[in-house]
Amino acid sequence: MATIKDVASDAGVAVGTVSKVLNGQHVSAENKRKVEESVLRLGYQMDHYARGLKTRCTYTIAVIIPGIQNPFFSELVYHMEQELYRRGYKMYLCQSHQDPEKEADYLRLVCQNKVDGILGITFNETAAQLPDSIPMVMIDRHISDKICCVSSDNFQGGCLAAERLIAGGSSSLLFIRSGSNLSSETLKRGKGFEAMCREKKVPYAMLDVGDDTDFFNGEAIYGCLKERIHGGKPAFDGIYTSTDGLALIVQEQLVRLGIRVPEDAQLIGHDGLRKMYKKEYLVSSIAQPIAEMAKVSVEQVIKRIHKEPTEEMVTLPVTFVEGGTTRPPVSTGEDGRPWGR
Amino acid sequence: MATIKDVASDAGVAVGTVSKVLNGQHVSAENKRKVEESVLRLGYQMDHYARGLKTRCTYTIAVIIPGIQNPFFSELVYHMEQELYRRGYKMYLCQSHQDPEKEADYLRLVCQNKVDGILGITFNETAAQLPDSIPMVMIDRHISDKICCVSSDNFQGGCLAAERLIAGGSSSLLFIRSGSNLSSETLKRGKGFEAMCREKKVPYAMLDVGDDTDFFNGEAIYGCLKERIHGGKPAFDGIYTSTDGLALIVQEQLVRLGIRVPEDAQLIGHDGLRKMYKKEYLVSSIAQPIAEMAKVSVEQVIKRIHKEPTEEMVTLPVTFVEGGTTRPPVSTGEDGRPWGR
Repeated sequence: MATIKDVASDAGVAVGTVSKVLNGQHVSAENKRKVEESVLRLGYQMDHYARGLKTRCTYTIAVIIPGIQNPFFSELVYHMEQELYRRGYKMYLCQSHQDPEKEADYLRLVCQNKVDGILGITFNETAAQLPDSIPMVMIDRHISDKICCVSSDNFQGGCLAAERLIAGGSSSLLFIRSGSNLSSETLKRGKGFEAMCREKKVPYAMLDVGDDTDFFNGEAIYGCLKERIHGGKPAFDGIYTSTDGLALIVQEQLVRLGIRVPEDAQLIGHDGLRKMYKKEYLVSSIAQPIAEMAKVSVEQVIKRIHKEPTEEMVTLPVTFVEGGTTRPPVSTGEDGRPWGR
Repeated sequence: MATIKDVASDAGVAVGTVSKVLNGQHVSAENKRKVEESVLRLGYQMDHYARGLKTRCTYTIAVIIPGIQNPFFSELVYHMEQELYRRGYKMYLCQSHQDPEKEADYLRLVCQNKVDGILGITFNETAAQLPDSIPMVMIDRHISDKICCVSSDNFQGGCLAAERLIAGGSSSLLFIRSGSNLSSETLKRGKGFEAMCREKKVPYAMLDVGDDTDFFNGEAIYGCLKERIHGGKPAFDGIYTSTDGLALIVQEQLVRLGIRVPEDAQLIGHDGLRKMYKKEYLVSSIAQPIAEMAKVSVEQVIKRIHKEPTEEMVTLPVTFVEGGTTRPPVSTGEDGRPWGR
């Protein structure tokens, strides 16, 4: 079996240089290449376990998400992996499917010294049971003042959506949300929406379809929308949904009900997802800065690992993006209310 | 610091039961729950390194893919993670971006005993440099008779696409592929297409846009298609593309050129991807059995880890799926050629 000395001799570098490369420290690109080639050629095996007993570091972060097939999570993980790699960390990918048992199982990895930290989007109370000493950053959920939460500005997103619907000429708004009811940063989307409707004195309704599985086939949404149509005329002409996925389902049901988007009703989603393989957005939306959220989460968890001070809460700005389901803003009268429809 | 005995006492079970749970062996659901709760409550840390020195197993598999934002890879990884978890394995997610350096870096993980095996979709020669003893399964690439390759039936997929275009009434076919030119199982898509065109005596053309980055904004495709239009009449009336992503780009350029799909030209992609959050397919396509490919890959790599015999090549069947870009099959004349358009 090859030793570190064999690698150094084969690569024509010092043993210290080999050690640096193996530990992810900086050496010249040329030396890095030489060492890596020799490591592969000789089949050198660094003793990960002997090293771990000494350093107690794995240079591994567990990323816990509900499921990677959701395009919001796949984009987040896409950026997290690159940011972690750039900093010399590897990533465990853990899909919880919102199953408390599976979440607990993955969180236990840390207690077994298998990872140095956790980046999580969890929906159960399991994470709160972990010792405070474990470096953890949560996305969109503020569960304890000891765990850093990275989020985009959900309240401002809700405000922006209502403001944009009103500016586009809508005068009776509807908010629809779905998903877990656990205290989460994303619930602020609805609160921001309400605040702006009140400020602008525009009537609105709030609709929560929760975790209802019927919503996936659109039936629950269809029923809720139909209830709000009287004599062929909908009681709403502007809708904001808690996610882009939900906006797509709502759009489909509006078409089914003969309501044209954006002519009869404008529609704004949340997340800022793009069409598969294309640059255009799925629907008009409140876009989250996904790459920036990934970068900041990685920064914060690595600071926690190194016992440096971290933020309790990082809130990144959101923007409105046009995706064909809203009308251009119309002029507003002196009282700030839209006119000219 | 809590010991394994403290956990057993807290959970009210035997030390052996705790050990079984920690090592991923079977115990009753009730005991598993008790032990896991105690582990979290007491903050018990199993010594991963001491255990690793003894067993030389990490129960971790590295999955190497070009990038998770590609929906084909995110669906594959979605199923792989579940299958690995079901069998007691964790997953490292590694994005290579087809960068040989990053691929080599991740492959070196194995040489450092950090993972027990690799599931890979690589596009460089790096993997071939690894010692034969390393358990590895490749998706869609047969690089050595010692590394199991799991693939869907790409040749049959190409045949099926040509057959379906002809059955739908197309009489002049075009195949367009993009991507790496390295010897890969996916190149068989074009070969199957050619074989069926010859068998059915239907004229065809083959177009390879390779890794040309212009293809992403559609300009390269637009130019190629335009060259094949003479006096407003296209020289093709049926197109098969090597991926669904490419089919979407081709569809956009056909619209730009005033060619209606499927009226003037039918279009079939490859992969069988569905619309975001919906059940419908993006385009008519040759669907790969992605969940089955994930399951078989995991099975094969675990067999390799346990030094059980594995297949050199596993080829899974593909199917044609209707996605709105093809016409229903028309009757065929006695010579097997379509008529009645």
